[in-house]
Amino acid sequence: MSLDDVRLVPLPVRSDERGSLSFLEAGEHVPFEIKRIFYLYGIAPGQNRGAHAHRELQQFLIPLAGSFEVRLDDGRKKATFTLDRPDQGLYMPAGIWGDLYNFSKDAVCLALASLHYSEEDYYRNYDEFKAVYGA
Amino acid sequence: MSLDDVRLVPLPVRSDERGSLSFLEAGEHVPFEIKRIFYLYGIAPGQNRGAHAHRELQQFLIPLAGSFEVRLDDGRKKATFTLDRPDQGLYMPAGIWGDLYNFSKDAVCLALASLHYSEEDYYRNYDEFKAVYGA
Repeated sequence: MSLDDVRLVPLPVRSDERGSLSFLEAGEHVPFEIKRIFYLYGIAPGQNRGAHAHRELQQFLIPLAGSFEVRLDDGRKKATFTLDRPDQGLYMPAGIWGDLYNFSKDAVCLALASLHYSEEDYYRNYDEFKAVYGA
Repeated sequence: MSLDDVRLVPLPVRSDERGSLSFLEAGEHVPFEIKRIFYLYGIAPGQNRGAHAHRELQQFLIPLAGSFEVRLDDGRKKATFTLDRPDQGLYMPAGIWGDLYNFSKDAVCLALASLHYSEEDYYRNYDEFKAVYGA
Protein backbone atom coordinates (compact mmCIF):
# COMPACT_ATOMS: atom_id res chain seq x y z
CA MET A 1 0.00 0.00 0.00
CA SER A 2 1.09 3.58 -0.46
CA LEU A 3 0.05 7.15 0.18
CA ASP A 4 -2.16 6.82 -2.89
CA ASP A 5 -4.46 4.62 -0.80
CA VAL A 6 -4.77 7.12 2.05
CA ARG A 7 -7.94 9.16 1.92
CA LEU A 8 -10.04 11.62 3.86
CA VAL A 9 -13.53 10.18 4.21
CA PRO A 10 -16.55 12.42 4.79
CA LEU A 11 -18.89 10.87 7.33
CA PRO A 12 -22.65 11.32 7.62
CA VAL A 13 -23.77 13.95 10.09
CA ARG A 14 -27.25 14.54 11.44
CA SER A 15 -27.59 17.92 13.09
CA ASP A 16 -30.67 19.41 14.67
CA GLU A 17 -31.52 21.62 17.64
CA ARG A 18 -30.17 18.95 20.00
CA GLY A 19 -26.70 18.85 18.47
CA SER A 20 -24.86 16.62 16.02
CA LEU A 21 -24.59 12.89 15.47
CA SER A 22 -22.16 11.28 13.06
CA PHE A 23 -21.85 7.60 12.33
CA LEU A 24 -20.02 5.03 10.31
CA GLU A 25 -20.72 1.46 9.39
CA ALA A 26 -17.92 -1.11 9.33
CA GLY A 27 -17.39 -2.36 5.79
CA GLU A 28 -19.03 0.72 4.33
CA HIS A 29 -17.35 3.91 5.54
CA VAL A 30 -14.28 1.99 6.64
CA PRO A 31 -13.12 -0.96 4.52
CA PHE A 32 -12.49 -3.34 7.40
CA GLU A 33 -14.01 -5.01 10.43
CA ILE A 34 -13.47 -2.98 13.60
CA LYS A 35 -11.57 -5.32 15.90
CA ARG A 36 -10.19 -2.70 18.24
CA ILE A 37 -10.60 0.95 19.05
CA PHE A 38 -8.33 3.28 20.94
CA TYR A 39 -8.38 6.96 21.69
CA LEU A 40 -5.93 9.64 22.69
CA TYR A 41 -6.96 12.33 25.17
CA GLY A 42 -5.50 14.61 27.81
CA ILE A 43 -2.68 15.30 25.38
CA ALA A 44 -0.06 17.57 26.89
CA PRO A 45 0.89 20.73 24.97
CA GLY A 46 3.57 20.16 22.36
CA GLN A 47 3.43 16.39 22.61
CA ASN A 48 3.38 14.03 19.64
CA ARG A 49 1.93 10.55 19.18
CA GLY A 50 2.30 7.85 16.60
CA ALA A 51 5.90 7.48 15.38
CA HIS A 52 5.40 3.96 14.12
CA ALA A 53 4.08 1.96 11.19
CA HIS A 54 2.14 -1.28 10.90
CA ARG A 55 2.77 -4.33 8.80
CA GLU A 56 -0.90 -5.34 8.41
CA LEU A 57 -3.05 -3.04 10.52
CA GLN A 58 -5.40 -0.62 8.79
CA GLN A 59 -6.64 2.36 10.78
CA PHE A 60 -9.20 5.10 10.58
CA LEU A 61 -8.63 8.29 12.59
CA ILE A 62 -11.35 10.74 13.62
CA PRO A 63 -10.85 14.00 15.53
CA LEU A 64 -13.79 13.70 17.94
CA ALA A 65 -12.79 16.95 19.59
CA GLY A 66 -10.29 19.64 18.69
CA SER A 67 -7.76 19.16 15.94
CA PHE A 68 -4.35 17.73 15.14
CA GLU A 69 -2.10 17.03 12.20
CA VAL A 70 -0.98 13.73 10.76
CA ARG A 71 2.24 13.32 8.78
CA LEU A 72 2.28 10.13 6.73
CA ASP A 73 5.20 8.50 4.99
CA ASP A 74 5.00 5.37 2.86
CA GLY A 75 8.77 5.09 2.59
CA ARG A 76 8.90 6.98 -0.69
CA LYS A 77 6.54 9.91 -0.32
CA LYS A 78 5.21 12.05 2.51
CA ALA A 79 1.96 13.90 2.98
CA THR A 80 0.36 15.91 5.76
CA PHE A 81 -3.29 16.03 6.73
CA THR A 82 -5.09 18.32 9.15
CA LEU A 83 -7.90 16.59 11.03
CA ASP A 84 -10.17 19.25 12.44
CA ARG A 85 -13.78 18.19 11.97
CA PRO A 86 -15.58 15.28 13.60
CA ASP A 87 -17.52 14.41 10.47
CA GLN A 88 -14.40 13.51 8.52
CA GLY A 89 -11.93 10.68 9.11
CA LEU A 90 -8.59 9.61 7.68
CA TYR A 91 -8.17 6.11 6.29
CA MET A 92 -4.65 4.69 6.65
CA PRO A 93 -3.78 1.39 5.00
CA ALA A 94 -0.96 -0.78 6.34
CA GLY A 95 2.65 0.07 5.62
CA ILE A 96 2.45 3.77 6.40
CA TRP A 97 4.59 5.53 8.98
CA GLY A 98 2.47 8.02 10.91
CA ASP A 99 3.26 10.95 13.18
CA LEU A 100 0.51 12.85 15.00
CA TYR A 101 1.33 16.32 16.25
CA ASN A 102 0.09 19.85 16.80
CA PHE A 103 -2.79 18.70 18.96
CA SER A 104 -5.13 21.47 20.03
CA LYS A 105 -6.04 21.81 23.67
CA ASP A 106 -8.66 19.20 24.58
CA ALA A 107 -8.17 17.28 21.32
CA VAL A 108 -9.52 13.72 21.24
CA CYS A 109 -8.35 11.34 18.52
CA LEU A 110 -10.40 8.20 18.00
CA ALA A 111 -8.74 5.38 16.06
CA LEU A 112 -10.54 2.35 14.65
CA ALA A 113 -8.29 -0.62 13.98
CA SER A 114 -8.70 -3.61 11.69
CA LEU A 115 -6.87 -6.10 13.92
CA HIS A 116 -6.51 -6.99 17.56
CA TYR A 117 -3.37 -5.69 19.22
CA SER A 118 -0.14 -7.36 18.24
CA GLU A 119 3.26 -5.89 19.06
CA GLU A 120 4.72 -7.90 16.16
CA ASP A 121 2.69 -5.81 13.75
CA TYR A 122 4.63 -2.66 14.65
CA TYR A 123 7.62 -1.01 13.08
CA ARG A 124 8.92 1.30 15.79
CA ASN A 125 12.26 2.03 14.14
CA TYR A 126 12.03 4.34 11.15
CA ASP A 127 15.22 3.10 9.51
CA GLU A 128 13.94 -0.46 9.63
CA PHE A 129 10.64 0.67 8.11
CA LYS A 130 12.41 2.71 5.44
CA ALA A 131 14.63 -0.21 4.49
CA VAL A 132 11.57 -2.32 3.74
CA TYR A 133 9.16 0.20 2.21
CA GLY A 134 11.57 2.68 0.64
CA ALA A 135 13.27 0.16 -1.57
CA MET B 1 -32.13 -8.97 28.99
CA SER B 2 -32.61 -6.70 31.96
CA LEU B 3 -30.88 -4.03 34.00
CA ASP B 4 -29.01 -6.85 35.72
CA ASP B 5 -27.00 -7.24 32.51
CA VAL B 6 -26.03 -3.57 32.32
CA ARG B 7 -22.56 -2.85 33.62
CA LEU B 8 -19.90 -0.18 33.88
CA VAL B 9 -16.73 -1.53 32.33
CA PRO B 10 -13.31 -0.15 33.30
CA LEU B 11 -11.09 0.21 30.25
CA PRO B 12 -7.31 0.03 30.08
CA VAL B 13 -5.54 3.37 30.16
CA ARG B 14 -1.91 4.11 29.38
CA SER B 15 -0.84 7.52 30.64
CA ASP B 16 2.57 9.09 30.37
CA GLU B 17 4.03 12.54 29.83
CA ARG B 18 2.40 12.69 26.38
CA GLY B 19 -1.14 12.16 27.65
CA SER B 20 -3.54 9.24 27.89
CA LEU B 21 -4.51 6.39 25.62
CA SER B 22 -7.38 4.01 26.32
CA PHE B 23 -8.39 1.06 24.22
CA LEU B 24 -10.82 -1.80 23.91
CA GLU B 25 -10.84 -4.98 21.92
CA ALA B 26 -14.05 -6.25 20.35
CA GLY B 27 -15.06 -9.53 21.93
CA GLU B 28 -13.02 -8.81 25.05
CA HIS B 29 -13.99 -5.50 26.61
CA VAL B 30 -17.27 -5.45 24.71
CA PRO B 31 -19.10 -8.73 24.16
CA PHE B 32 -19.93 -8.15 20.50
CA GLU B 33 -18.50 -7.37 17.09
CA ILE B 34 -18.43 -3.64 16.39
CA LYS B 35 -20.53 -3.23 13.27
CA ARG B 36 -21.22 0.46 13.64
CA ILE B 37 -20.11 3.43 15.67
CA PHE B 38 -21.77 6.77 16.20
CA TYR B 39 -21.00 9.78 18.32
CA LEU B 40 -22.84 12.73 19.73
CA TYR B 41 -21.15 16.13 19.86
CA GLY B 42 -21.96 19.81 19.78
CA ILE B 43 -24.80 19.06 22.18
CA ALA B 44 -26.83 22.14 22.96
CA PRO B 45 -27.35 23.07 26.64
CA GLY B 46 -30.27 21.28 28.25
CA GLN B 47 -30.80 18.91 25.35
CA ASN B 48 -31.41 15.18 25.72
CA ARG B 49 -30.64 12.25 23.44
CA GLY B 50 -31.70 8.63 23.31
CA ALA B 51 -35.38 8.17 24.17
CA HIS B 52 -35.64 4.80 22.48
CA ALA B 53 -34.94 1.12 22.97
CA HIS B 54 -33.63 -1.62 20.70
CA ARG B 55 -34.96 -5.08 20.01
CA GLU B 56 -31.57 -6.69 19.26
CA LEU B 57 -28.88 -4.02 19.29
CA GLN B 58 -26.28 -4.05 22.04
CA GLN B 59 -24.38 -0.84 22.71
CA PHE B 60 -21.39 0.41 24.61
CA LEU B 61 -21.21 4.09 25.55
CA ILE B 62 -18.03 5.98 26.38
CA PRO B 63 -17.78 9.65 27.43
CA LEU B 64 -14.77 10.64 25.34
CA ALA B 65 -15.03 14.20 26.59
CA GLY B 66 -17.07 15.81 29.33
CA SER B 67 -19.85 13.97 31.10
CA PHE B 68 -23.52 13.04 30.87
CA GLU B 69 -26.06 10.88 32.59
CA VAL B 70 -27.88 7.82 31.32
CA ARG B 71 -31.25 6.70 32.64
CA LEU B 72 -32.03 3.10 31.78
CA ASP B 73 -35.32 1.26 32.04
CA ASP B 74 -35.86 -2.41 31.26
CA GLY B 75 -39.63 -2.12 31.54
CA ARG B 76 -39.65 -3.17 35.17
CA LYS B 77 -36.80 -1.35 36.85
CA LYS B 78 -34.88 1.87 36.31
CA ALA B 79 -31.32 2.88 37.06
CA THR B 80 -29.18 5.94 36.45
CA PHE B 81 -25.50 6.06 35.58
CA THR B 82 -23.12 9.01 35.41
CA LEU B 83 -20.55 8.69 32.65
CA ASP B 84 -17.73 11.09 33.39
CA ARG B 85 -14.42 9.38 32.69
CA PRO B 86 -13.06 8.26 29.32
CA ASP B 87 -11.56 5.08 30.72
CA GLN B 88 -14.93 3.64 31.66
CA GLY B 89 -17.83 2.61 29.43
CA LEU B 90 -21.39 1.47 29.90
CA TYR B 91 -22.55 -1.80 28.38
CA MET B 92 -26.23 -1.87 27.41
CA PRO B 93 -27.81 -5.12 26.24
CA ALA B 94 -30.86 -5.11 23.98
CA GLY B 95 -34.30 -4.42 25.37
CA ILE B 96 -33.37 -1.40 27.47
CA TRP B 97 -34.96 2.04 27.11
CA GLY B 98 -32.27 4.71 27.40
CA ASP B 99 -32.35 8.45 27.98
CA LEU B 100 -29.17 10.54 27.86
CA TYR B 101 -29.25 13.92 29.56
CA ASN B 102 -27.35 16.47 31.62
CA PHE B 103 -24.56 16.72 29.06
CA SER B 104 -21.69 18.92 30.11
CA LYS B 105 -20.47 21.60 27.76
CA ASP B 106 -18.29 20.03 25.06
CA ALA B 107 -19.37 16.48 25.98
CA VAL B 108 -18.70 13.80 23.39
CA CYS B 109 -20.49 10.45 23.65
CA LEU B 110 -19.08 7.59 21.60
CA ALA B 111 -21.36 4.60 21.05
CA LEU B 112 -20.26 1.23 19.72
CA ALA B 113 -23.05 -0.84 18.23
CA SER B 114 -23.37 -4.58 17.63
CA LEU B 115 -25.43 -4.32 14.44
CA HIS B 116 -25.66 -2.25 11.32
CA TYR B 117 -28.37 0.38 11.34
CA SER B 118 -31.93 -0.87 11.08
CA GLU B 119 -34.92 1.33 11.82
CA GLU B 120 -36.95 -1.84 12.50
CA ASP B 121 -34.77 -2.52 15.51
CA TYR B 122 -36.03 0.59 17.31
CA TYR B 123 -38.79 1.11 19.81
CA ARG B 124 -39.43 4.84 19.68
CA ASN B 125 -42.71 4.75 21.61
CA TYR B 126 -42.29 4.13 25.33
CA ASP B 127 -45.76 2.68 25.83
CA GLU B 128 -45.15 0.14 23.08
CA PHE B 129 -41.81 -0.78 24.69
CA LYS B 130 -43.39 -1.01 28.13
CA ALA B 131 -46.18 -3.26 26.88
CA VAL B 132 -43.60 -5.78 25.64
CA TYR B 133 -40.92 -5.60 28.33
CA GLY B 134 -42.94 -4.63 31.37
CA ALA B 135 -45.24 -7.62 31.21
